[in-house]
Amino acid sequence: MAGEIPCHKVAENDDFLAFLDINPLTKGHTLVIPKQETDYIFDLEDDALGAMMVFAKKVAHAIQTKVECKRIGITVIGLEVPHAHIHLVPINTMMDMNFSSPKETTNHSALSALAESIHGEFRDK
Amino acid sequence: MAGEIPCHKVAENDDFLAFLDINPLTKGHTLVIPKQETDYIFDLEDDALGAMMVFAKKVAHAIQTKVECKRIGITVIGLEVPHAHIHLVPINTMMDMNFSSPKETTNHSALSALAESIHGEFRDK
Repeated sequence: MAGEIPCHKVAENDDFLAFLDINPLTKGHTLVIPKQETDYIFDLEDDALGAMMVFAKKVAHAIQTKVECKRIGITVIGLEVPHAHIHLVPINTMMDMNFSSPKETTNHSALSALAESIHGEFRDK
Repeated sequence: MAGEIPCHKVAENDDFLAFLDINPLTKGHTLVIPKQETDYIFDLEDDALGAMMVFAKKVAHAIQTKVECKRIGITVIGLEVPHAHIHLVPINTMMDMNFSSPKETTNHSALSALAESIHGEFRDK
């Protein structure tokens, strides 16, 4: 990450960071990354991998308080950029998880407001 | 699971089970499930969720020794059946993760042989 600040942060702790995808599949589409530099998620040590998933769960719960959806879908593809990341996608149908669908256009002011509202619901307990 | 035995098992421990999807997106497409009955994966307790991901990682490593691919992609959709499951999909391109793609047809003898070969590589240490 080299000190960059991702735009629309929804959650953070010592080890992980979550922020809104700027080209979301659906409203609330969030990326979860480890602060530790790792390319392939399954190269993470067991403890770090488990903790990342637990962090993602807490983020998912926060998203669901603010975005109407049946579930938060999970995807890790890992071919796009060389930094392990989990996609959390609010879904109502299977098609909402289709990464070949047209993405929503970026609206930074809407994303910023949404990120702030989700962040307010995040509990890292 | 009500005592049913899933067909083409690739790994098992006290808490989790992994078996080949009979309509795979790609060769080696595997499902990981908790033995504990759970509908939504993010309803699992932190420990169980972390352990499920660590189990999935070990399964992924076993798959990669037997199936040629760049990565093992991960997807949880959770709208198909009311039992939490992680899809592990050997991928070479992003399109390999497209769940609206036509699935491969079921070939039980090929699946059985593949499951056995992956099972031989699984280490639950």
